[in-house]
Formats: sequence, C-alpha cells, structure tokens
Amino acid sequence: MSTLLVVGGVAAGMSAASKAKRLDPSLNVIALEKSPYVSYGACGMPYNLLRPDDPMESMVVITPQQFRAKRGIDARTNMEVLEIDAHNHTVKAKNLVSGELSTFQWDSLVYSTGAHSIKPAWPGIELEGVLTLRDLVDGKAVKDYLARKAPKRAAIIGGGYIGLEMADVFTELGIEVTVIEKLPSIMPGWEPEIVKPVHVALEKGGVTLLEGVTVTGFEGSNGQVKAVLTDGPTIPTDVVLVAIGVRPTVDLAVNAGIKLGPTGAVAVDREMRTNIPGIWAAGDCAEQWHRVLQRPAYVPLGTNANKQGRIAGENAVGGHVAWEGMIGTSVFKTLGADAARTGISRAEAKDAGIDVAVSMIDAFDQAHGMPGRKPMRVILISRKDNGQLLGAQLVGAGVAKRVDILATAIWAEMTVKDVGNLDLAYAPPFSPVWDPVIVAANIAEKDVDPNGLECRFCK
Amino acid sequence: MSTLLVVGGVAAGMSAASKAKRLDPSLNVIALEKSPYVSYGACGMPYNLLRPDDPMESMVVITPQQFRAKRGIDARTNMEVLEIDAHNHTVKAKNLVSGELSTFQWDSLVYSTGAHSIKPAWPGIELEGVLTLRDLVDGKAVKDYLARKAPKRAAIIGGGYIGLEMADVFTELGIEVTVIEKLPSIMPGWEPEIVKPVHVALEKGGVTLLEGVTVTGFEGSNGQVKAVLTDGPTIPTDVVLVAIGVRPTVDLAVNAGIKLGPTGAVAVDREMRTNIPGIWAAGDCAEQWHRVLQRPAYVPLGTNANKQGRIAGENAVGGHVAWEGMIGTSVFKTLGADAARTGISRAEAKDAGIDVAVSMIDAFDQAHGMPGRKPMRVILISRKDNGQLLGAQLVGAGVAKRVDILATAIWAEMTVKDVGNLDLAYAPPFSPVWDPVIVAANIAEKDVDPNGLECRFCK
Repeated sequence: MSTLLVVGGVAAGMSAASKAKRLDPSLNVIALEKSPYVSYGACGMPYNLLRPDDPMESMVVITPQQFRAKRGIDARTNMEVLEIDAHNHTVKAKNLVSGELSTFQWDSLVYSTGAHSIKPAWPGIELEGVLTLRDLVDGKAVKDYLARKAPKRAAIIGGGYIGLEMADVFTELGIEVTVIEKLPSIMPGWEPEIVKPVHVALEKGGVTLLEGVTVTGFEGSNGQVKAVLTDGPTIPTDVVLVAIGVRPTVDLAVNAGIKLGPTGAVAVDREMRTNIPGIWAAGDCAEQWHRVLQRPAYVPLGTNANKQGRIAGENAVGGHVAWEGMIGTSVFKTLGADAARTGISRAEAKDAGIDVAVSMIDAFDQAHGMPGRKPMRVILISRKDNGQLLGAQLVGAGVAKRVDILATAIWAEMTVKDVGNLDLAYAPPFSPVWDPVIVAANIAEKDVDPNGLECRFCK
Repeated sequence: MSTLLVVGGVAAGMSAASKAKRLDPSLNVIALEKSPYVSYGACGMPYNLLRPDDPMESMVVITPQQFRAKRGIDARTNMEVLEIDAHNHTVKAKNLVSGELSTFQWDSLVYSTGAHSIKPAWPGIELEGVLTLRDLVDGKAVKDYLARKAPKRAAIIGGGYIGLEMADVFTELGIEVTVIEKLPSIMPGWEPEIVKPVHVALEKGGVTLLEGVTVTGFEGSNGQVKAVLTDGPTIPTDVVLVAIGVRPTVDLAVNAGIKLGPTGAVAVDREMRTNIPGIWAAGDCAEQWHRVLQRPAYVPLGTNANKQGRIAGENAVGGHVAWEGMIGTSVFKTLGADAARTGISRAEAKDAGIDVAVSMIDAFDQAHGMPGRKPMRVILISRKDNGQLLGAQLVGAGVAKRVDILATAIWAEMTVKDVGNLDLAYAPPFSPVWDPVIVAANIAEKDVDPNGLECRFCK
C-alpha cells in the first residue's frame, strides 16, 4: 500500500488529502497537523467574534474523526513535523500532547504548512493582550480575551484587509478602534480612488486612522498591554491586534532541500510540483500562478489554497493536472464600505511594462427611484493597445459579487468593449438598468460622456 | 438640417434619440410619445407602490424639458402617431391634449413603440379595479386605486415575473394575494427545479397559488370588481391585476409596410434595420438577437431595449454598428425567493436540437459558520459534446448578481470546466470559499461527488 503524507492539514492539505483518497481509495493517506484543529475556515473567525455564544471551534468544517470515518483519511492533530527527509522518504514528527516521537514513511508528500503572522520583536510584544488572528488557536485566544477583559479600546497595527475587517468587528462590538499603518495609506496595493471612500467610511464609523505612523513597542502594567508606542503619538489601548501580514511557513521545506521562489514561498510549477520528485506543495506556504502576469506571485488566500490542494492531491496519485492559476480576486467588508479587486492594479501593470487605460465611474447599486440605493465606485484597468481588461477594483454597496463579473471577463480575456455589451440581469432591487460594470466599460470605450456622471462619494 | 423622428419615447426611443444627437449635434431630433411621460423606469413601478408618499412620476428619469434643455432633443408627450408614410417620409400625429393634427417630415425614423399588456375580452374586464401594470399611466392608476380603495384581497392573473413581483409587493402591503395561472405551473419557461422553491416560498409567505386554472370573467357590483370567475373556484377579490404577458405594439409598423418576424415583433437585423430603408426599430416592439440560439427571439426587457435603442440611434446617423445580442438574462424578486436565469433552458436546447447535460447544486450564499446564510440553488445547462455552458438558472439568496458570472461565461463561450476554475471573490459574508457557481460547474465536470451535497430546499 502506497502512502501519501500531508504536512499541514487546513485548507490546502485537507483538500489534497481528500482529492487523492477519492481518486485512489487504496491509498494510505496520513495528514499531520501541528495545531489541535484540521479543516477550518479561518476567514470566518472575525465574524465568529460577533457571536459570543458560538464557540470558535464551530469554524471547523470537518473533524479528524469525520475524516477518518467518512473519508478514510488518517488526520492527526497536535503532530508537529520536525524533519522531512527527502532522500529516505521519511518524516519525523512529535506528538505535542504525549511528547511521543514517530517516523513515517511516505511515497508522496504534500507540503501544506500555510503561513504565519509577522510579529516583529517590538519591546513589549510578549505583554498580555497583544494578539494576532491567523489560525484557530489565535482565534480562540482573541475570543477568550474579549470575554475576560471586555476591552473598551483596541489598537490594530496594519491597515490591510484583516486589520480593516477587524476594525469593523471591533466597532460592531462597541470597542473604540485606532488603526495604525506604517505606510502613507491604509490598503497598500489598492488604487487610491478605492482607498478614499473606505477611508471616509472608517472615519465616519468612528475609527481613528493613523497613517505613516511606525510602531516602536508597547507599554504595559502588570504584564498587561496598556499602550502602543509609535514614532508619533502614544495610543492608550486595552487590546492590540498585530495584522501586518503573513509569511509562508517554509523552514521544514528549506531544511529538506525544497527550493523557494523569489517571493520567499515554496516554488511550484503549475502541477504543484516542487523541485524534489515526489513532493508537492500547495496553499499559503507556496507561490500561486498569476494568470494575468503569467508568472508566480504570492497571494495567500483560502480560495487559492483549496484549488492548489486539489491539484496537488490529484497529481500526487499520478495525475498531470495543471492549475489554471488565479488573478488575485478578493473582497473584504469594513464599516459598510466593501472593497473588491481582481486582476492587476496600475502599479502591477507598470511593473510588468504594460501600458494601461484607466476608467472610473460612480454609480448606484440599485435602480433609479429605489430609496435604499447606495453608491458604488468601479475602476477598470485595460490594455491601451487592444482594450483587453486586465484589472478592476470596486468599493461600496453591491460590489462583492459584481467583482466576479469582471473576474470572469478577465479570465476569458475579454476587452472592455465586450464587457460593455454584456447581457447582465436587471431588476430594480438589484441593479440599475445599465449596470455600473457596463457603464464603466462604456466609459473605457469612450462610449459614455463621463461629464454626465456625478461623483457619488464626493458629497 | 436632417431630421430623425423617434416614434415612442421610453427606453429604446430616448436611448436612440440621445445617442444620435450626441454623435451628430447638428441633427434635428424629434421624439413623439403617446403617453404623458418619456424616459421612465417602468420596472421600478412595483417598488414605488411600496412608498405611498413617493409619486409614481418619480420613475421619470429625464423630463421632456430636460431633454430639450440639456440634450437638444425635441421630446413631445401626448403625441399619438396616426400614420407613418414610408414613401413620402412623413408622419401624421395628433396632440391628445389639444386635438391638433400635425405632419412631420423625417430623413430617418426609429420605431420604438414598445409593447402593451395582453387583456382578453373577458366579460367584466371593464369593471373598476381590473388593472394592468405596463406603462406609467397604468402605474399611476394602480397606485391611485390602492390609495382610494385600500383593497384587502388581490387576485393576480398570470404567474410570470410581473405577477410574482406584484405578489411580493401586495403581500408587503398587507394585501392577501391569490395568483391564478392557466398553465400547469407558475413561471412558464423556467426549470421545474427552480420553480419549486419559489412555489414553496410563495405559499409560506401566505400567497394562494391556483395553477392550471383558467379565468372566464369577472363579477362586479356597482361597476366595481368583486370576484374572478374561473373554470374552477370563484375568487372573491377587491382588485385584479392582469399580468399574462405583453404583445409588441406593431399596428403602425404593419400599416407602413414594415415586416414582422416569426415572433410577431418587428423584424430587425443586428443593425436594427427594418425592411424599409431609413427606418430602424428597437425595444419591446422589435425582435432581439439571441446570441446562444443565433436567431431572433422575443425577450422584451429594459436592458435589451436600451441597448437596441443606442444601436439604432448610432446607425440612424450613418453608423454601421451590429448589436452583439442578448442571452435572455433576467432576475426577479418574490417573497425572499429571488429567481434568475441566463442563456437557454432545457426546453430551448431541445427545440434547437442541442444535446445538453444538466447539473444542479444546493448551497449557501455565505460561508460555513455564518448564522445568516441562506440557501441557493444553481442549475447549469451545458453542451454534452464539448461542455460549453449554454444556460443557467438560480433561485434563493444572493443569486441576482451571481447569475451575471454565468452570463459572462456564456457570453465568452466558456465551458463548465472553465467556470469551475474561475478565481471568484471570497469573504465569509459574501460567499462560501467554494462559490456555489464553481461547485455547480465542478459537478457538471464530475469533479465533485453530488452525494456529499445536501438538498437545502428539501427540509
């Protein structure tokens, strides 16, 4: 009996294990996960915090018991892999509960260790109340802290999507929020015209934004965090969330001789193969193939992790499926200003040497006359030479699934002219008769007079 | 100075007038509209009924005064066109307010008279309270009737989308609703698996559905409708809405020698030309090019009318733009069971001699663990030989813009395999990590085990 060993059992790992076992039921599939949990939806943790009576463990989709009973997969938690021996095809692991050391033989291996929060060695980082929110253990700690300490003020370090989702959640919980971003603006990588309305919404919602401010450490009292120290003001607070990004977890891989790509994540080809025969990698520890840029990138998202995992699982049992890649589609919710993006930005186009045209429209999510309609902004980025749509960013109401129209158009290599012709669904509660996406495309095609359009976010 | 005469000034007509005038500012553009209103959003009328203090006239987007002042278009209301003389390039019209008769010369003409409600000669059809809801005059009459009579019970004849939108609105207004459909099921033309959940939602919402029941007339008292007579039960009611469909308004066209297509609407090519040189037609009076079926069809929707109007306007000033067509995308809201469709149905595929595969999934609109998540059903219809996506129907929460992903995929001639690979936006409030659209495509690709999926509408 052949053995597939999966190192890391969250999104990519358990997708790989499930796919491989389904394709080859005779396969012995062992998944080793360092934490006490496999297969959970980490992205749902901010929203779980809004429900005090719903334990964080409810984020678990499938338990190890269910993996064993229903899928025939030997999923083991609290198992820290200490070493991957690529030559002898073994893995050494330690049971973190019993302390027991074991060695596993494998015929194929999927490396899916994920990523970990960046947590600099700031003085005071060890104080109680300085938290991160990456894995389920983090999530439980945050929830426990909120229940025990009932903080009145929160400082969030980092104005990326996790930071801003949590600004939304803390505000909802009645906690006063300060967001501290080192760069000149929150939402690094997003177009400034999209950042602006989010900025306005956050401040309107009572969130204090400190941009271009560098954290230098923390002040505490009796081991408990009391303030964030910066190169500007000192921010008194009852809890700190460090959300300045993640790094791929690659130590085991590097020690095993697995090569990293230029992003610092494990280099994989489109079949999820690493440089070592018999070892695949998938998920947030690995690079992702960017379909627009036609090169690997590092976009650690659950959607990509699940897809990469399935590809790795299929190929680990003899398949030769190439991943079609991703285009960086994402969305997040923050204080009524949802923001979504797909494809590439102006800056990414510039880096790639692609000359682009940019069009923008402010419109409403519902039809003329609907009293509840809310503003939305759409930016389209297209090739100057042939009009091919390369990127889109949206902010406001109704953008979360509208971005998918543009993601589909980019995927299909449509031009803005094609997008302007699309037959999209219309009923007054859902859309204006000319959907904002179509109007934005018509502007890009110079088919609409932009002077006739009002700025909905300017008031 | 050259004159463009537009006969009928709602969606298609005013789009044509605006486009033509913008492309050729020297053009004399006259739009003659029989009713007192131009350029209004008729689709919004059901929702206006929910707001007693908001006059139905607020559905008007641009007034004739604004057309004159801002766009240089001579838009005239209450002007009934009596005859189009294609040989002498004239139009005779009557001012319905003053009774004055006028003759207009034209160089080019856009025929955009729209469609009208089917209202059979049932005994009692003239009774007060037997209403339709097609144009703004209808809308005002319905609103006025509701205000004056405060009906407690409504009978809706016709279980199509207008009937079911109005069932929703009447229910919201606290009016008890009975829907009477002649055919064996409401929502003719929709897949039965989509109709079922709507059926359940309507009955759960207190709406009485009478299917396979034929109306024979009305009973009144003092000129006021009191009951609907059928081949089955007699339905006591305080108001009747006749919503059994529309017919294209083609009398003037036929008299002018303009040819109709097999659907009974004006035959146009993809440049919106009729058989008579110098006369274009657009909107609900005309046929629409069906991009999937590659033949004309009759799908009278505002989205199509606006697009056709713009094409007609551009070509009426010397352009040669071909409409890319439509694929029958639509959506409607009724008692929490929104229904959306795009492309072709099983029946349309069969008629066209196309062998199709059908896949279905029940899923949720939000991620695992989100307490507010609601069920959704997705059906995909694809070519059996090559997997090309040809149609999709959805019902439930979050379907209104999700159908547009599939409309875009059909437009781009993607296969279900392509759809299954799409990079769509994910955040827990907006979608599961595997969007239902992707899961449905994976099922169609036999890439997901449908036995593992629960029926969300079966409980």
